[in-house]
Amino acid sequence: MPTRRERANAIRALAMDAVERANSGHPGAPMGMADIAEVLWREHLRHDPGAPDWADRDRFVLSNGHGSMLLYALLHLTGYKVSLDDLKNFRQLHAPTAGHPEYGELPGIETTTGPLGQGFANAVGMALAEKILAARFNRPGFKVVDHHTWVFLGDGCLMEGISHEAASLAGTHKLGKLICFYDDNGISIDGKIEGWFTDDTPARFEAYGWQVIRDVDGHDGEALSKAIAKARADGRPSMLCCRTEIGFGSPNKAGTAAAHGAALGAEEIALTRKQLDWPHGPFEIPDEIRNEWDCRRQGGQRRAEWLGKFDGYRQAHPELAAEFERTFKGKLPAGLNQALLDFAASSQRDRVAIASRQASKAVLDLIGPQLPELLGGSADLTGSNGTRWNGASTVTPDQADAQYMYWGVREFGMTAACNGIALHGGLIPFGGTFLTFLDYARNAVRLSALMGVQNILVYTHDSLALGEDGPTHQPVEQLGSLRMTPNLQTWRPCDQVETAFAWHAALNRGQAPTALILSRQKLACPERSADQVAAIARGGYVLLDPAGTPDRIIVATGSEVGIAVDAAKALNAAGGAVRVVSMPCLEAFEEQDAAYRDAVLPKSLPRLVVEAGHPACWWRLAGSNGKVLGVERFGLSGPGDDVMAEYGFTADNVAELARGLV
Amino acid sequence: MPTRRERANAIRALAMDAVERANSGHPGAPMGMADIAEVLWREHLRHDPGAPDWADRDRFVLSNGHGSMLLYALLHLTGYKVSLDDLKNFRQLHAPTAGHPEYGELPGIETTTGPLGQGFANAVGMALAEKILAARFNRPGFKVVDHHTWVFLGDGCLMEGISHEAASLAGTHKLGKLICFYDDNGISIDGKIEGWFTDDTPARFEAYGWQVIRDVDGHDGEALSKAIAKARADGRPSMLCCRTEIGFGSPNKAGTAAAHGAALGAEEIALTRKQLDWPHGPFEIPDEIRNEWDCRRQGGQRRAEWLGKFDGYRQAHPELAAEFERTFKGKLPAGLNQALLDFAASSQRDRVAIASRQASKAVLDLIGPQLPELLGGSADLTGSNGTRWNGASTVTPDQADAQYMYWGVREFGMTAACNGIALHGGLIPFGGTFLTFLDYARNAVRLSALMGVQNILVYTHDSLALGEDGPTHQPVEQLGSLRMTPNLQTWRPCDQVETAFAWHAALNRGQAPTALILSRQKLACPERSADQVAAIARGGYVLLDPAGTPDRIIVATGSEVGIAVDAAKALNAAGGAVRVVSMPCLEAFEEQDAAYRDAVLPKSLPRLVVEAGHPACWWRLAGSNGKVLGVERFGLSGPGDDVMAEYGFTADNVAELARGLV
Repeated sequence: MPTRRERANAIRALAMDAVERANSGHPGAPMGMADIAEVLWREHLRHDPGAPDWADRDRFVLSNGHGSMLLYALLHLTGYKVSLDDLKNFRQLHAPTAGHPEYGELPGIETTTGPLGQGFANAVGMALAEKILAARFNRPGFKVVDHHTWVFLGDGCLMEGISHEAASLAGTHKLGKLICFYDDNGISIDGKIEGWFTDDTPARFEAYGWQVIRDVDGHDGEALSKAIAKARADGRPSMLCCRTEIGFGSPNKAGTAAAHGAALGAEEIALTRKQLDWPHGPFEIPDEIRNEWDCRRQGGQRRAEWLGKFDGYRQAHPELAAEFERTFKGKLPAGLNQALLDFAASSQRDRVAIASRQASKAVLDLIGPQLPELLGGSADLTGSNGTRWNGASTVTPDQADAQYMYWGVREFGMTAACNGIALHGGLIPFGGTFLTFLDYARNAVRLSALMGVQNILVYTHDSLALGEDGPTHQPVEQLGSLRMTPNLQTWRPCDQVETAFAWHAALNRGQAPTALILSRQKLACPERSADQVAAIARGGYVLLDPAGTPDRIIVATGSEVGIAVDAAKALNAAGGAVRVVSMPCLEAFEEQDAAYRDAVLPKSLPRLVVEAGHPACWWRLAGSNGKVLGVERFGLSGPGDDVMAEYGFTADNVAELARGLV
Repeated sequence: MPTRRERANAIRALAMDAVERANSGHPGAPMGMADIAEVLWREHLRHDPGAPDWADRDRFVLSNGHGSMLLYALLHLTGYKVSLDDLKNFRQLHAPTAGHPEYGELPGIETTTGPLGQGFANAVGMALAEKILAARFNRPGFKVVDHHTWVFLGDGCLMEGISHEAASLAGTHKLGKLICFYDDNGISIDGKIEGWFTDDTPARFEAYGWQVIRDVDGHDGEALSKAIAKARADGRPSMLCCRTEIGFGSPNKAGTAAAHGAALGAEEIALTRKQLDWPHGPFEIPDEIRNEWDCRRQGGQRRAEWLGKFDGYRQAHPELAAEFERTFKGKLPAGLNQALLDFAASSQRDRVAIASRQASKAVLDLIGPQLPELLGGSADLTGSNGTRWNGASTVTPDQADAQYMYWGVREFGMTAACNGIALHGGLIPFGGTFLTFLDYARNAVRLSALMGVQNILVYTHDSLALGEDGPTHQPVEQLGSLRMTPNLQTWRPCDQVETAFAWHAALNRGQAPTALILSRQKLACPERSADQVAAIARGGYVLLDPAGTPDRIIVATGSEVGIAVDAAKALNAAGGAVRVVSMPCLEAFEEQDAAYRDAVLPKSLPRLVVEAGHPACWWRLAGSNGKVLGVERFGLSGPGDDVMAEYGFTADNVAELARGLV
């Protein structure tokens, strides 16, 4: 019967062989963590390779994502649909075995990792989601939500600032089912870490309220097993500090940075095979070892047990069971969309004039109580962001069945944890901050778009018009940077009516993120027909037309729509022929058919685009004979109207610019 | 004689009065930290209000920048050129007393703060700079560099991830002259922090190797003075954990979030005056208190002593003194620019074909030894970024007189610390990472541009062509986001010749940041005349022309220039008339006069722009009848050439697109 070490060596061999074949990749971490993986994946991880989307499976996150071959080898060996050919095609174009694990490319990849520290923060979100849903759905005798989140992470993850934000949150919320393995190998890309990373990491995590298990020998299966048992028994999140050797098994490269990020080379691989006593050829796994790893039967049994339990649950608690299934399917409650459309219609009727951040809160007041899977929050700007609806309940360490999270001043941690919550399923997270501070969370926003997860990003104080807080707080390049992010939709509504549509879009987009860009200042509600209201969903529409045929167009978004309307009205009253197009979502507009787009923006008419942000994204639409009134320098501290006027955002100046169009 | 408390109350009164007058701002922190400020600024801070740029002054950083009125009040009271009128115009358009402290707006503002945590990281950079320069310049009997860096910070700074990166670096490098005051008031914007911030912060900082002084009463001057003495005596950085009451003095709002970010209101201000026993009117400071604060005489004396010492130093060590003065003036060594131009010329002669990241290293091999103020580094990607030149010495805790920093996996901490190093003076910092991971440091990049500091950002692996690491590592929106940042110049050279010019520009831009965008893959060196080589400095120039008059233009940057040249050569060989313009720096090109720009890009000629990044920034230049070959979806894992081909970046496809221009 194979030993633990032999089983672990199967991972080592696959990892070094695949990296060698690709002549690209990272053998060091898979070889160093193979013994840990052997214990965890064979004895603790509760999963079913045949049903990778089983709601109550344990989640496994490889936060040190460069060690992707570790995960691919595990998925292959335990019986997921990951073939030997997939491993042989590691890092080749269109192979699902990408350089770093890409969510959606292979079953069993729970999140995309590579950008360090974020997998760990995703895992905190997953563990939080589990805790919330367990509190919400479990009933005596029916623990239908009861799984662990396991994380592998390395020195790189721990050096990153996001590790602080995520660990602090996990400690505060007592996420006892989050269990992390620190690959303490003393090496990062630049060499021995002692020159740049001297933290007492165990003490640091104790300061966060974690259970820390020190000095675990990461190559000793029994020691690891004992440590895992201890971790499971504790109500705090656990950090197992595992001493390991990077590239374990390689006689000349183990324990050095040389094992980290490059193929070992044919000669060293031969020596490693010898040292590991692994006589098998490249990509060859003996059947007896393969059998030991295959957990399809066991996984299927476990899932069957859970399904049996869930059947009982359905009988005892039919409404809860239906709600559980609805939310995990990502299906919105019946009536919610109609309620949003009704709300838009009544907002139009009443011409409600408030800041769009307040309009967003009004939308939340409506939908929050109807949408229990909505998990709101803010990075310590709750009142300013308008993210907390009336009657919302607060997630606390002792009462997790709630809908609002106080994330603290942790934009990056919040956004990455929300990615994890969305990945977990059963909840729709959104988090708020000021638009400028999107910068702090930039890469988590990118990953939500890359993965395609429904993370709703609420950004208020969206322009110079925020005023006195000044240039550090006034966005310039942020709107453009969001629009340049593939797969992200950015909505910048001009009033409460458009805000309702923005939320409607965000909730109905399914597996993709949406950014909502909201004003600090009050915005007037323009007149609209019912058709115009309905056209908001198209991302851009004719808001105002002159009496006759238009001869020019002003396109505006958000708070600049009101200015454009005022300018157009003044020009039209003086015999002009100006159309105003409101364009709350450029991406949605670009998805419309050409006939609609041409009807809104006839090719023959010159265009002026007005938006209090960097103009780059608008030049394509404005065209060579058009103009863009944007912002190409940093802002200024002063009352919002004064600052806006200083940068030309007045009806007079917009009218002047529109007059000059030819 | 006024008591400590009375002196502190002068700050409290000015802060609450200014916020009240603006009806905007944050009275809570200034009122809570006034007693700490009184002790520090009157008894410990070594500065001269008459010479705010004195090289050996202590640095003071208000990392909780929303408490700007604390700093403005201190600058006013101690004798800087900050008038009562400035305070009265707090947060008004064009007043230097902006909502958050803006570097350059008033003497004595050492850095722009507001985005939380970054002031703290700037301060780590300043303290590191002090340590490096002290080791470099001090000689027995002549401590010409010997100052402290003092930081005020709050819960928000400590929740941010960057606090982890910065504190860890400060601990590793034993920055004993960094002394921080934690405003431990238990309140953040959303209320009492116990719901979202339960770290044992003192234990956390001990884990970083700091001296932590716990439980200091932040309203007890004597206790604070003792704690400061203890901090100064220790070789580790110190964190003084000061228990304070936010909005101290306000009977109804002190100790609550209500004191944080809004005017107290006339009634509460009256009550506060009463409670503080401060009978003076708004903006009124009695002379006897004013006299106690005024430190111009004392500051002038201290500076005079230092100048005397420096005179002696100049006599004993004339070369060191000259070097000190040269570097603090930001003047490059004689001959450096010529060496760079010679290097460019010889690179052109030899047609050196290497990756531009390697070309950048070759430039550094040349200039590193000639430019002692250059402080290089990388966020744990030294070999990949090519940031460490041959023979560079390493900054270590025990040997700080060196030129290379291993920053660890801390992109944000590195970039913000480099801002601090640049602000400190005497050094020119640069730091490297992959272009995608710019995201992690996004807001520090923004602040370098907003402040105008010479922080050189080295970003390698600049496109899809990095290949196998896949979409998490392949930039798409990053180049555009840099170009949309005001005051930043982005250079993306196409070979070693342009790389030399990019470094030349970065070093000669003075007080502004420059991003250098470098390829992972090898790039050919095109033919150029001497005039063409010289024209690189203009940011864009004609690299190749057809035999006759051109009828179309391909504009390209970086690694796509070679593809454009191949395409144009093929077209021209077949009777085409294609010009190729290389545009390593769009911003520099746009600064050229219209005649030059029109000569390079005649208005009549249609244009195809080719760049492996998001096209948004190019549409203005391409125009309505132009095309942009860019990247509008995420990348793929695979060999670099395969990925580039998949996205159309081949000479054949570029030729095809150019052929279609009309």
